[in-house]
Amino acid sequence: MGRWEPNACGRLAQAALELFDERGYEQTTVAEIAKRAGLTERTYFRHYADKCEVMFGKSGALQEEFATAVAEAPASMAPIDAIAAGLEAVSQMFAGRREHRQRQAVIAANAELQERELTKYASMSAAIADALRRRGVAEPSATLTAEAGIVVFKVGFRLWLAASEECELSQMMRESLEDLRAVTAPQR
Amino acid sequence: MGRWEPNACGRLAQAALELFDERGYEQTTVAEIAKRAGLTERTYFRHYADKCEVMFGKSGALQEEFATAVAEAPASMAPIDAIAAGLEAVSQMFAGRREHRQRQAVIAANAELQERELTKYASMSAAIADALRRRGVAEPSATLTAEAGIVVFKVGFRLWLAASEECELSQMMRESLEDLRAVTAPQR
Repeated sequence: MGRWEPNACGRLAQAALELFDERGYEQTTVAEIAKRAGLTERTYFRHYADKCEVMFGKSGALQEEFATAVAEAPASMAPIDAIAAGLEAVSQMFAGRREHRQRQAVIAANAELQERELTKYASMSAAIADALRRRGVAEPSATLTAEAGIVVFKVGFRLWLAASEECELSQMMRESLEDLRAVTAPQR
Repeated sequence: MGRWEPNACGRLAQAALELFDERGYEQTTVAEIAKRAGLTERTYFRHYADKCEVMFGKSGALQEEFATAVAEAPASMAPIDAIAAGLEAVSQMFAGRREHRQRQAVIAANAELQERELTKYASMSAAIADALRRRGVAEPSATLTAEAGIVVFKVGFRLWLAASEECELSQMMRESLEDLRAVTAPQR
């Protein structure tokens, strides 16, 4: 990344979100995104592999944060509690809901973006399962726990975006985890 | 579907699996799949929308079977037990493991097929959540329970394919569900 292009990633992501929202994903070209950001198409492709990727620029950092929090949770913690620590950590990465709502609406309107989002979640799940295995969690428990974590993240995030009142993402994550535990618990 | 092309779907799927396995997904064209099946490219596209879809010809039936079993489970059953009934029902749709192992190996070797598989799972999850809501299960419990069902299906299916000895898919599903319940249960 050249120092003459400060925050090129963020500028491209912002421009892409605006254009996808205004014109639709299909109707927008990479050249138009680059132009809106005041950058070249070549610069775009130095940062993002294709037109989809610009919507998922922070997924790598999110995955890293989640997996690291799971890996670094106290050794005495049960796997599902290490997941709770990961959910707590990633919740701190999300600020105002307005931009995230706009972003999710753009994703919901395009099948290609939806497929890419599923791929990002699958990658996140694999990284978390890996972190759990390094904590000594055996298979298939590691994969099941990691997948449960992703399910909770997806539902908690959606609840946060949909909530009519201001609320904390971390609170939505905790509630979703409790709800998952409740639905899988033996009935009394 | 013309009656002069008996089992065109199945013949195309078999031909595609053979060719993807022999040459790789990228190196195979729809024309070659159709030719191997003794059919035309035009017939291919009457049955499958693109090159990916031929690998997922049974996903619609699988989704239907799962959602129907959930919908028709006794009203007194807890949501997670309705999911167990769905897992039991779909387990009966899978015969010998050899072909499924070959199919999963082809999917694992190609990013496009992996993305499509994730999309099929997402669609299945949505259909199951819908069946649960029609049973009176509220959100977010319906989505969480349906997603939990998909997690169990994915893990159970993988364990079944990987098992060194012959085993029942339905048994693997039951064990995976028990494992999920164990990892999400409060620690004692």
